[in-house]
Amino acid sequence: MNETAHDGVGTNRSTADVRFDLLHEAPSGRGRRGRIQFPQREASPGFRLPERSVETPAFMPVGTQATVKTLTPDEVSASGARMLLANTYHLYLRPGHERVRRLGGLHKFMGWNGPILTDSGGYQVHSLARLNKIRDDGVEFQSHIDGSRHRFTPELATRVQVALGSDVLMAFDTMTPYPSEWDRARADMERTSRWAAACAETWRGEGWPGTALFGIQQGGLYADLRRESTERLVALDLPGYAVGGLAVGEPIEEMYDVLAECAPLLPEAKPRYLMGVGRPEDILEAVDRGIDLFDCVLPTRNARKGSVFTSRGKLVVKNAAYQEDERPLDPDCRCPTCRTFSRAYLRHLFAAGEILAMRLATLHSLQFYQDLMEGIRSALSEGRFAAFKTETLARLAEGA
Amino acid sequence: MNETAHDGVGTNRSTADVRFDLLHEAPSGRGRRGRIQFPQREASPGFRLPERSVETPAFMPVGTQATVKTLTPDEVSASGARMLLANTYHLYLRPGHERVRRLGGLHKFMGWNGPILTDSGGYQVHSLARLNKIRDDGVEFQSHIDGSRHRFTPELATRVQVALGSDVLMAFDTMTPYPSEWDRARADMERTSRWAAACAETWRGEGWPGTALFGIQQGGLYADLRRESTERLVALDLPGYAVGGLAVGEPIEEMYDVLAECAPLLPEAKPRYLMGVGRPEDILEAVDRGIDLFDCVLPTRNARKGSVFTSRGKLVVKNAAYQEDERPLDPDCRCPTCRTFSRAYLRHLFAAGEILAMRLATLHSLQFYQDLMEGIRSALSEGRFAAFKTETLARLAEGA
Repeated sequence: MNETAHDGVGTNRSTADVRFDLLHEAPSGRGRRGRIQFPQREASPGFRLPERSVETPAFMPVGTQATVKTLTPDEVSASGARMLLANTYHLYLRPGHERVRRLGGLHKFMGWNGPILTDSGGYQVHSLARLNKIRDDGVEFQSHIDGSRHRFTPELATRVQVALGSDVLMAFDTMTPYPSEWDRARADMERTSRWAAACAETWRGEGWPGTALFGIQQGGLYADLRRESTERLVALDLPGYAVGGLAVGEPIEEMYDVLAECAPLLPEAKPRYLMGVGRPEDILEAVDRGIDLFDCVLPTRNARKGSVFTSRGKLVVKNAAYQEDERPLDPDCRCPTCRTFSRAYLRHLFAAGEILAMRLATLHSLQFYQDLMEGIRSALSEGRFAAFKTETLARLAEGA
Repeated sequence: MNETAHDGVGTNRSTADVRFDLLHEAPSGRGRRGRIQFPQREASPGFRLPERSVETPAFMPVGTQATVKTLTPDEVSASGARMLLANTYHLYLRPGHERVRRLGGLHKFMGWNGPILTDSGGYQVHSLARLNKIRDDGVEFQSHIDGSRHRFTPELATRVQVALGSDVLMAFDTMTPYPSEWDRARADMERTSRWAAACAETWRGEGWPGTALFGIQQGGLYADLRRESTERLVALDLPGYAVGGLAVGEPIEEMYDVLAECAPLLPEAKPRYLMGVGRPEDILEAVDRGIDLFDCVLPTRNARKGSVFTSRGKLVVKNAAYQEDERPLDPDCRCPTCRTFSRAYLRHLFAAGEILAMRLATLHSLQFYQDLMEGIRSALSEGRFAAFKTETLARLAEGA
């Protein structure tokens, strides 16, 4: 199953490259249990990252500005997370990628030695910045912080991620909004394909050992476009591929359908990453369609607003209904929040505007996501994913 | 030195009472090294607090709304803090003292088993609430949260603190602003004295075992009034006494002078608590004048604004000067922040508005305060407080 040959002894090449091993495949559906291995490497002079591995399917908490909001790296790690996502657009603007490089790279800067995936900035220049112009060779935009003018090209987006010291770089892409006509989706996909080739050239040309570049499949909801996108990306022979442009407002059934049709187009032997998804239900459905890697702001962002995920669905703990509820957020949870504090206390902290509320809720929801992924991995390893998915979806629908 | 006789065997009375032992007195100055012991007690049905002791001089972090802002109880405890202050006024308004009682008391509610001192609310009804009327038997005020009307009497302030389950209750007092004429200060002191007697009666009448009531010396900057205040409080034979109404805007030298003259009026065998003070320099000076117990929002509040305390004085880490400074906040500090993160990272987090910035800065400043207190206690135990004070003040003046 593994595209690269490994003899167990390890050559210079096999130890220096990011590597993906498929361990189990579900007897029904397309679910896969795998492992991404990241080699030891010198991230900056004198600062060496150890060998690291990520069991898949995996969920990456989002650390937009070089921090998973409200938490320390130790807490993130204790939840079971092994790999983080950080946002290239944000870090490019503040504190600046060259500053991060001078400070020894993102791992050293934020105190996280695990693998870091940086997005390309393509989504943020569309969603956050004031986008001035999309050109054939890049985009012009204004900072959401101070309005300053910037230009991103595939080459620069790649170089920024290299400066940050990321383990997995994402190819610079352009976004297709929902809904979009075929022509618009075709033009976006075409541009994204050309940009991916430019990113690959920059990444390979500068030869950063021990890192990976992932290409991003686009094409809106059009299967033919996603097929063409995949073919053009696969021709670049990248270490991994992502499905982009989903969860942008389309009905959830349409997303599942596109995934079912388009995720299998991606090479079986490479990790498949579904960007920006999603709810626990979505993760179960996407795993069933062959996805290995996820990121999403939902557990962290919702938690800060007083809404947490539990094994029995969403719980809006800031609601007055919980003001004398002595139970933990989720009686089935082992996180530090559930071990110590009641819903009543959390409710009070939210009502009083206390920062600790956001911390404790975030800790819990991240633990819930990591436990979900661990459950998914065990089920896949033991050939019982279909039953696990059915039971978990039923429990999620019960109501907390 | 110890007013209550203890034979080491323990009688019902000696184990059920809060107890203060003087361990060492400084050969020069009035500095004292002591220990406050809190007995085991049932804080609510089925919830038992263990026996706890607090080494003095001690600094109590402020947990206004049943949380030391941004931190978990474990983190507060890891910094070396053994006793917290919580605010009666805030908790009375939200979540409500009867709710806290129904939830098992403040210790269980917030996950802190160490001693908790609650202030009386007297300061907050003056400084935070819209104060409508001071009457002979209490005050009328409007909530700073929703404008609702309330009335506090000495009896109610005591009952609220009992409902919260606090270990040390403060007698309801009234505040004398700076500057104030003698007549105003006299009237405030007179009222505070009468109210202290009413609080003592409520506290004793309901016989809450294992808790202590502290009276508050008032009198503005007038030594004769503070003398009269003390005499009237001491007549109540309370377990401890506080110096109130300082650090309210008067020149710092005046505060030191009042302390030098008025702290020694308080009984030697009882703990002496200086409310709301202060900077590290102030704590050193106050210990030298015979104070045992402190609380202050400075380390926590300033930290949240990007300014921390270090062994070489204040450091405003949010300043651009630190954006590429790879040193920890304080190279002499052992806190989790200083062990892991650079000033550059902290500066980035503050610039980016990240909550983790406030957490990490708070952790550090609390550790600094607790380490200062530990240094003070060791110096007192070893008879070298005068030298310790001189050296510490000199280092604090160096600049971080």
